[in-house]
This record gives sequence, structure tokens and C-alpha cells, in this order.
Amino acid sequence: MENDDIVYVGNKPVMNYVLAVVTQFNNGADSVIIKSRGRAISRAVDVAEVARNRFLKDIEVKDIVISTEKIASERGEINVSSMEIFLGK
Amino acid sequence: MENDDIVYVGNKPVMNYVLAVVTQFNNGADSVIIKSRGRAISRAVDVAEVARNRFLKDIEVKDIVISTEKIASERGEINVSSMEIFLGK
Repeated sequence: MENDDIVYVGNKPVMNYVLAVVTQFNNGADSVIIKSRGRAISRAVDVAEVARNRFLKDIEVKDIVISTEKIASERGEINVSSMEIFLGK
Repeated sequence: MENDDIVYVGNKPVMNYVLAVVTQFNNGADSVIIKSRGRAISRAVDVAEVARNRFLKDIEVKDIVISTEKIASERGEINVSSMEIFLGK
């Protein structure tokens, strides 16, 4: 799978990421992975739900994977939850 | 599946819910569902990850389901994302 098919969800409004997902499918992608960490995980679920319910009726959630990443911070290494939502036809 | 095997994640500290999950498995539950909505979804992922990585090494994430719920609010009906994390042996 190419990098183009990954959407990283951060702190911008939900619709920014929805647009990115919809655009990738419209450009011919068969699948898109929505990646997020920490508090952005809630927003990533919103992105998947809005994209599916409002714009991409034929797209399904194929899989959701959660994991823990170690990230270097000012206070040393901290654990952060991460999530990948796999969307496809 | 009985109601006892569901943990609803809200705004309390992560460890409160981790303790609830661990307790249910220690009391003989074969599976526990972690339910959350809106911003608590990020915390629910933390709960699953901490419970698994620190306390319940033999427990796996069996499935994760996301959906949209309609909730009555002061401003009328609004859509809220929800998530269920199914933990089991």
C-alpha cells in the first residue's frame, strides 16, 4: 500500500480529514488507512463515520487496530495509544 | 452476554476503568466490552491498551466496532461517534 493512501488525523477540524479520505477514494484508491494517536483518536472515529455515512456509502470499515507507541517527550519516554482504521470497498 | 461484562468509559481517570476491566476478568468473565462515545473514545483505547499490556497478558482485542448514535441535546438531535472494544481470551 502506498503512502498516499494514509490519512493522519491531528488537531484540525474533522471535515479537513474527511475531505482527504473522500479525495483519495475518488482518485482511485481501493483502501485508505486513517491513523491517529492520543486524543486525536476520537476525531479519527468521527472522520471514518462522517466519510462513510455522508460521502462514501459503498465503503466499509475493514479493520481497526489499536496499539501503544513509545514517544520521546520532554519528560522522557511516554506511552501513547494509537489507532489505525482501515477503510475499503 | 451479561450486563456485568460491559465497562462504560466516561471522564474519570483511565485507571478507574482499567481496574473495572481487570476485576471482571479476575471474577471469571470470558469477555469484556469497553463502550465509549465522543471524546471518551480516546480514553477507552487507553483503557484497553493499559489493561492488556500491564495486567492481562493473555487477553486479546477480538474486535473493534465503531458507529454513530443520535443523541437528544439542547440544540436538537446530534450525531455522536461511539466505539465498542471487545476483549477476550
